[in-house]
Amino acid sequence: MKRGSKLAQYEGVSASVIKRLPRYYRFLRGLIEKDIHRISSKELAKLMDLTASQIRQDLNCFGGFGQQGYGYNVNALYQQIAKILGIDKSIKTILIGAGNLGLAIANHVHFENIGFHLSGIFDVNPNVVGQNIKGIRVSHVSSLSEFCEKNKPQVAILCIPRETAQEITNNLVDLGIKGFWNFSHFDIKVHHDDVIVENVHLGDSLMTLCFGIHQLNGDTEDKQG
Amino acid sequence: MKRGSKLAQYEGVSASVIKRLPRYYRFLRGLIEKDIHRISSKELAKLMDLTASQIRQDLNCFGGFGQQGYGYNVNALYQQIAKILGIDKSIKTILIGAGNLGLAIANHVHFENIGFHLSGIFDVNPNVVGQNIKGIRVSHVSSLSEFCEKNKPQVAILCIPRETAQEITNNLVDLGIKGFWNFSHFDIKVHHDDVIVENVHLGDSLMTLCFGIHQLNGDTEDKQG
Repeated sequence: MKRGSKLAQYEGVSASVIKRLPRYYRFLRGLIEKDIHRISSKELAKLMDLTASQIRQDLNCFGGFGQQGYGYNVNALYQQIAKILGIDKSIKTILIGAGNLGLAIANHVHFENIGFHLSGIFDVNPNVVGQNIKGIRVSHVSSLSEFCEKNKPQVAILCIPRETAQEITNNLVDLGIKGFWNFSHFDIKVHHDDVIVENVHLGDSLMTLCFGIHQLNGDTEDKQG
Repeated sequence: MKRGSKLAQYEGVSASVIKRLPRYYRFLRGLIEKDIHRISSKELAKLMDLTASQIRQDLNCFGGFGQQGYGYNVNALYQQIAKILGIDKSIKTILIGAGNLGLAIANHVHFENIGFHLSGIFDVNPNVVGQNIKGIRVSHVSSLSEFCEKNKPQVAILCIPRETAQEITNNLVDLGIKGFWNFSHFDIKVHHDDVIVENVHLGDSLMTLCFGIHQLNGDTEDKQG
């Protein structure tokens, strides 16, 4: 399937609507946890700090979930969004790099709940290789090609430094990896435009916060002379 | 200063341009590391997978960094972006929650390089309180108010579960915290619209990747019957 047809199934649905779906999913789960099974677009809007009309527009893209005078069936909507995102399936995933960050990702993220199955963890550090993380024995990266041929993972999580990311990314693409959850700061898309990449630049988020705080404080250049 | 005037110093500069600045900053640092001190908008565009005209438009918002026929002075541009973002200053910051994720954040993020100074770490777990992370002794959250009165931190990083986040957030806002780097999945903005919040929803990013992979695979609902 070509990249151009990525949204073929949801023709007319913009990428920004898709980007908002995980947030709806989170809020709907919160409602279910609170035993709320029916909600109006107005109430949901207040909860999510959106407008009721934006919510109606977003959700109408996928069919009519709401009924006038009744509101949304929370469970039905939750399950439908899970289906659209593909969370109800399971993508075989490997983690590259089991340092501080990799370890936190492995332990913190509930992969099975959001459509992924973590099936292998790889590192080069002899102090880490052989350790057990979430029931998975950390293997040396030299065994990657054998593992991928046998298990055919589709997604790799990169928790390695930028310096080492290029070589291993090339290798992983050759081994059939189709998607990257990328914490490495190496810009994968520039070198491989045929894979799906979600970059997590934690520093970028923090720099944006930095800007916001200084603006809030009124730390303008003028004031500082 | 009211929220409405947040961008007062850079009037006419859209929030989306500000959001892109950290990425420019990263790429410019990469160039400096490679000893490249001059670059055309065309070359920078290729590197960053943007168009030259978008780069010129973005950077023109902050004054004329480029010169026709010469290109951009990489060092000058790098320093100017640092100044705009406020990275050249230092915001006192505390970390709440020193579990797997908090530990990874403390160790992985180079706070001092991007405008922050981590000055306190807090947890409730007796196995964690008293430990030393990056030269900082982890304190019990019961000492938060004393610490904040004395040290006046402006930013809190929340690496705690959603369930406990609401109470501690209210507390932190009362103690003068103005900005949150929020990993907790608790929607701070809904309850406190006068603080600056950068949410990091790692799961959202992964769910978006999930959608992308299934679209790439052609896993449409039709196919699956």
